[in-house]
Amino acid sequence: MEVYLDNSATTRVCASAAQAALDAMTAEYGNPSSLHSKGLAAKKILDDARRAAAERLGGLPEEIFFSHSGTLANNAAVFGAVQAKRRAGNRIVTTAAEHPSVGKCMDELERQGFEVIRLKPASDGNIPAEALQEAVNEKTILVSMMLVNNETGAIFPVEQIRRAVRAANAPALIHTDAIQAFGKLPVRLSSLGVDLLTASGHKLHAPKGVGLLYVKKGVGLKPFVYGGGQENGLFSGTQPLPAVAGFGAAIREADVSTHLPAAKENMRFLRGLLEHIPAVRFNSPADASPYILNFSVEGIPSQVTINFLSAREIYVSAGSACKKGHRSEVLTAMGLPPDRIDTALRVSLSRFTTKEELTAFADALSDAVKTVRTKL
Amino acid sequence: MEVYLDNSATTRVCASAAQAALDAMTAEYGNPSSLHSKGLAAKKILDDARRAAAERLGGLPEEIFFSHSGTLANNAAVFGAVQAKRRAGNRIVTTAAEHPSVGKCMDELERQGFEVIRLKPASDGNIPAEALQEAVNEKTILVSMMLVNNETGAIFPVEQIRRAVRAANAPALIHTDAIQAFGKLPVRLSSLGVDLLTASGHKLHAPKGVGLLYVKKGVGLKPFVYGGGQENGLFSGTQPLPAVAGFGAAIREADVSTHLPAAKENMRFLRGLLEHIPAVRFNSPADASPYILNFSVEGIPSQVTINFLSAREIYVSAGSACKKGHRSEVLTAMGLPPDRIDTALRVSLSRFTTKEELTAFADALSDAVKTVRTKL
Repeated sequence: MEVYLDNSATTRVCASAAQAALDAMTAEYGNPSSLHSKGLAAKKILDDARRAAAERLGGLPEEIFFSHSGTLANNAAVFGAVQAKRRAGNRIVTTAAEHPSVGKCMDELERQGFEVIRLKPASDGNIPAEALQEAVNEKTILVSMMLVNNETGAIFPVEQIRRAVRAANAPALIHTDAIQAFGKLPVRLSSLGVDLLTASGHKLHAPKGVGLLYVKKGVGLKPFVYGGGQENGLFSGTQPLPAVAGFGAAIREADVSTHLPAAKENMRFLRGLLEHIPAVRFNSPADASPYILNFSVEGIPSQVTINFLSAREIYVSAGSACKKGHRSEVLTAMGLPPDRIDTALRVSLSRFTTKEELTAFADALSDAVKTVRTKL
Repeated sequence: MEVYLDNSATTRVCASAAQAALDAMTAEYGNPSSLHSKGLAAKKILDDARRAAAERLGGLPEEIFFSHSGTLANNAAVFGAVQAKRRAGNRIVTTAAEHPSVGKCMDELERQGFEVIRLKPASDGNIPAEALQEAVNEKTILVSMMLVNNETGAIFPVEQIRRAVRAANAPALIHTDAIQAFGKLPVRLSSLGVDLLTASGHKLHAPKGVGLLYVKKGVGLKPFVYGGGQENGLFSGTQPLPAVAGFGAAIREADVSTHLPAAKENMRFLRGLLEHIPAVRFNSPADASPYILNFSVEGIPSQVTINFLSAREIYVSAGSACKKGHRSEVLTAMGLPPDRIDTALRVSLSRFTTKEELTAFADALSDAVKTVRTKL
């Protein structure tokens, strides 16, 4: 039995999404910009997916722009927002725990001379709302904060940003990277109060190679890519239609109201199993997203556990796949000691995860602790 | 019978590419950056596709970087080259007939203060090699010229650039957008002499949502997208693995040595059929790529013909899909009169195109000329 518990890195494409992608490859394969009926049929796929995303978020179809990846959408959001507001101030507020697709943009903006304030998560992984309020001042042009942290599952106080921006009378645009939240937790624009929001297909059982950026009506972003002007000029280049079609199908299938309670139950079950393994220490906050659990296995380096489990066809990670073997900046920012960081694992669930899989994982981990730890 | 003759806009995904994409969605769906065997299996798909592309071009696998689109690869090449060489000069040489994914980058660079020389195609659609030699001077930092023009099929003198750069003692990097040539004409790095080359999957029966950039060993480009550092930092963001897998399969299947003679025969056949329709005037040069034919149908606006044919399930275009109804800049640059431009059609073939399809198209076009033209 293959047990895939690395769903925050990427997911298996669900049947309806794979079918939609296949149809877009072999039947409705036209270019949505083409002015014949083969092109119009392709455009309909695009419009349907756009409508599905808009409905799910509570926005308008014309506020949804498909990108070729979540990373590209994050880049476009961050650089676009700063470009749009650069005359209004110099401060950017973000966190020290963002995904590199936001974090590395911030490094570049700092090189360009912007003042970047990176809020640190507390030792439990959460970002204190007070720190946010203190950081936002009247020169703040962008606040970018992820909704669910990809390594710990911590839910960041995105809903508090609008108030902080108003209180400081800041000209800031508000962006959230909701890649680990979209389709899993309730993500409604009306309660988030953001101007820009990023989501990605392949974290939600759609194919790799599609993301989306919500841009609130009236917010103008400078194009990030130059070309044929697709996606209203924001993401030039022929849209990745098979992946978009799959994204549309995956969005329609994602049902937070049934999947979230099941995920919570799975996470309760998993935590219960792991509590009985003496070497395990949880790094995720108790109120984290029920799709992600980060914990350390005292005494066994992360990669050793990953390899032990991988040999049994059980797949977990040490953190973000995009960090590939580098020490987690998120856990470092939380102030965890090095031995805790270097033994950390991330288990990430999907709506297809079963209790049998979680039990198989916990049994194997227990074996690892018994056999590997004594040998080291 | 559906007759799809808009293969320069996009192509139907071939069976082997669709199967490879499907496998990457539902079986080997891991993240190639993940450090477990599910990730390694995904990385193998990526490496196999990279090797296929390198072999086809005559380059090294480590010189091939997968992007999420041809447009993105063109943007990265143009902006990256200029960034790398900006201290060495101020002049950029390109053509007035590039695809917008290069042309719009040039507009932006001009706004930034660079001197952009745009070589005009002659009235036959070709770019005179002498004009190229005159344009390149010792302050030229980039020469970017497409290999096959997407609207007329004209083959541009990319092979002459290296000599012009040497003669002028220019510090220039050489880029070619080979999107309409790769897999169709012989595209070998050894004879082209370029530093940078772009290709796109969906013009070659791979899924939409993948491109590639060849970067000659030793040429350093500044990243265009910031994030997890995928593709050696050049194209951050999880690779679009289903599309990459399909691209690999499509590349392996593209056999220029058999497909090119067949395409030439098809083009000869098509030109023969159209010569008998009195209203037709060819805009493509005689020595163009045998996959593209641009011609005008005197007296019938392009969109009228497109609609007439589309109603019969025959699909052609008025030029680049990415121009969507705007007057062709390529034909304008060739100095064609407005009525010739406004009645222009582009027929683009694939290796799957049959003589039966071409005959059906020519018959329908003949009908259009007989029935529509008299009504207008």
